[in-house]
Amino acid sequence: MDIKGFVRQVALEAKAGARELGRATSNVKNAALLAMAKGLREAAAALLSANEADVKAAIAKGLSPAMIDRLTLNPKRIEEMAAGLEEVVALPDPVGEITGMVQRPNGMMVGRMRVPIGVIAIIYESRPNVTADATALCLKAGNAVVLRGGSEAINSNRAIVEVLRVAIAKAGLHKGAVTFIDTPDREAVKEMLQLEGIIDLVIPRGGEGLIRAVVENSRIPVLKHYKGVCHVFVDREADLQMAQDVVVNAKCQRPGTCNSMETLLVDEPVAGEFLPLVSAALQAAGVQLKGCAKSRAIVPSMGEAMEADYYVEHLDLRMNVKVVDGMEGAMDHIAQYGSLHTESIITKDYGRAMRFMREVDAASVMVNASTRLSDGHQYGLGAEIGIATDKLHARGPMGLEELTCRKFVVLGTGQLRQ
Amino acid sequence: MDIKGFVRQVALEAKAGARELGRATSNVKNAALLAMAKGLREAAAALLSANEADVKAAIAKGLSPAMIDRLTLNPKRIEEMAAGLEEVVALPDPVGEITGMVQRPNGMMVGRMRVPIGVIAIIYESRPNVTADATALCLKAGNAVVLRGGSEAINSNRAIVEVLRVAIAKAGLHKGAVTFIDTPDREAVKEMLQLEGIIDLVIPRGGEGLIRAVVENSRIPVLKHYKGVCHVFVDREADLQMAQDVVVNAKCQRPGTCNSMETLLVDEPVAGEFLPLVSAALQAAGVQLKGCAKSRAIVPSMGEAMEADYYVEHLDLRMNVKVVDGMEGAMDHIAQYGSLHTESIITKDYGRAMRFMREVDAASVMVNASTRLSDGHQYGLGAEIGIATDKLHARGPMGLEELTCRKFVVLGTGQLRQ
Repeated sequence: MDIKGFVRQVALEAKAGARELGRATSNVKNAALLAMAKGLREAAAALLSANEADVKAAIAKGLSPAMIDRLTLNPKRIEEMAAGLEEVVALPDPVGEITGMVQRPNGMMVGRMRVPIGVIAIIYESRPNVTADATALCLKAGNAVVLRGGSEAINSNRAIVEVLRVAIAKAGLHKGAVTFIDTPDREAVKEMLQLEGIIDLVIPRGGEGLIRAVVENSRIPVLKHYKGVCHVFVDREADLQMAQDVVVNAKCQRPGTCNSMETLLVDEPVAGEFLPLVSAALQAAGVQLKGCAKSRAIVPSMGEAMEADYYVEHLDLRMNVKVVDGMEGAMDHIAQYGSLHTESIITKDYGRAMRFMREVDAASVMVNASTRLSDGHQYGLGAEIGIATDKLHARGPMGLEELTCRKFVVLGTGQLRQ
Repeated sequence: MDIKGFVRQVALEAKAGARELGRATSNVKNAALLAMAKGLREAAAALLSANEADVKAAIAKGLSPAMIDRLTLNPKRIEEMAAGLEEVVALPDPVGEITGMVQRPNGMMVGRMRVPIGVIAIIYESRPNVTADATALCLKAGNAVVLRGGSEAINSNRAIVEVLRVAIAKAGLHKGAVTFIDTPDREAVKEMLQLEGIIDLVIPRGGEGLIRAVVENSRIPVLKHYKGVCHVFVDREADLQMAQDVVVNAKCQRPGTCNSMETLLVDEPVAGEFLPLVSAALQAAGVQLKGCAKSRAIVPSMGEAMEADYYVEHLDLRMNVKVVDGMEGAMDHIAQYGSLHTESIITKDYGRAMRFMREVDAASVMVNASTRLSDGHQYGLGAEIGIATDKLHARGPMGLEELTCRKFVVLGTGQLRQ
């Protein structure tokens, strides 16, 4: 079969799986998840051996140590995958809830019922744990998945998917609930993205390049974030000790994440006092600072920030510092350079706190908190499938609810349109 | 300036307008809407004269009488446009509402605030009233619009937009809140659809061809419905008088609409009794029936339905009839031929009513009601910007709330990530 026909056949299997999964009760879905966790633990030796083949090939191809680390499975990571499935069992099932049911003047009842989206394609890079994690969240919300992982992980992913499908069948569900595009051919992704009407949603997980390629080629809605260029704005009436603690935490607690701070914005009246303190604390933590001319006049040890630097998601211990003219200056900077991810103001002033919260356009807007708290677990959503920086359907951390949609339900007694 | 630069400039003006409009209170937005209504009434003579030029050109080009009717303005239609703006004033403003605010274990408060989407492009055909109607709904929800109407209506649209922009400025808002792609060049639409990051959402309004072209070319999320192929399923335990009333209403009350019934599905045990009755009623109303072999064996005057007929949105008094084997047969037919718009079951059986409501995948699922009731006004949403048959963001009739999104807001006291 050609690649087009193959991809279509897999997606149609998922569509059949989705129809059956959409009717399944929480009990049945939870039984499937528990069977998956058990299956992963029992198959650990086979998974490690499949993964070894991927890792050997990756070393031979000269992939970076960071990529090889992401690709590598070990007994601890397999146990984490299994435990992750069990955590999803514990989350409440969003499907079936009816909200806003009202009686209309003609007597009919109208409300909205939360239902699965249908078939979700997950396109990801070389981390095999995504195979289990993403499947678990989609399945709990009643969706079938079409998985397409990076070609470097194909042996690992094939082995994991086989375990998941056996578990699905044991729970009495259609195997199409979990499907896998088992080819390294890059054309397969392009074909997936044309299958409007079969695949309902695409979630790409990986670097900006992967995500841009998906958006450019997709006729199917995509939930995504390109990058996180997050700011902390230290207002003229900030508690400067709190500001320093938040800035250091937002940058240093885990710099490789999308919710870390990339640029510190400091209100001019407090720059002279705050910048020497915070720079010393950041430099002591190993952070390399680039600043605007005003920042460098206060802290001459900073490098020089060029305009292009303000667009960069560093993902490491580099960051920018800019002195701004009040909250207007901060909001203008964020509107220009921000990525709609997470923005935080540090202030004791009520009016500016409220204005920042209302007017800043981002998935998460914070007052007096570290941007690193922008996260599904921290917000109480349970596990998250990703963070969306678009504005449609979901914004910010996406949990189970964001993997569902709502249909209208009408309960009548023979009502007609007048 | 080339077309690309022109379209980009218009969209950037809208983006600037959106930032200011997003901060505006309901009072200011309502004042703008009232000024718009007043402006349209006062400019009636100028609008009619601009419209006359369009209508003359359309007649000269030999457009169909139906198209010319949709294009034509008269004093009554201008008054309806103005009154429509005033109706939107009366609707509650969804912007600013915070829901689900909870305190997390570390003491920070996390909730979701409803905010405008930003810049919305409306791409439509030759009905100039859409210019005012769509603008009003977008503006009330805090969004700037980029309007692109059919080239046949360009003089009418230009004149209407001029009135709306004068009113916007009078209310003290940025004129970019209402922008118009003032060129008949078809390339302009393609350029609009590339402006990811400037335009946040595209809503095409028109025939299936227009909508498919938009989806194929857009990198921006699109809210749409291609067509409405709606079904009424008459279950073996239906009240047959109610079933007949609903079927006649669903087909005949206004057959040119997307929520009219296209195919009647009749459960086999009641087909012999029900089909002669309903056929007579439908035929008396001028409906032309095409049936499956079983239907024609009962009512020989029906034409023969081919498989392709079941995919057709007739938009007139033609329809299909099919005898099915129970609700499983009905649900299989709907899954295959339905357009995810509106589906209705007529039954007295509790179990089948509940199963149909849960399991049928459509934007609206009804029990004992006419599909013609699938509508924003009927559901109590107020005016609607359209009906979505996709599953992301909005499903079914879209009112003001569907023209907004929700961001996370976090109110902290210095919380850090541990």
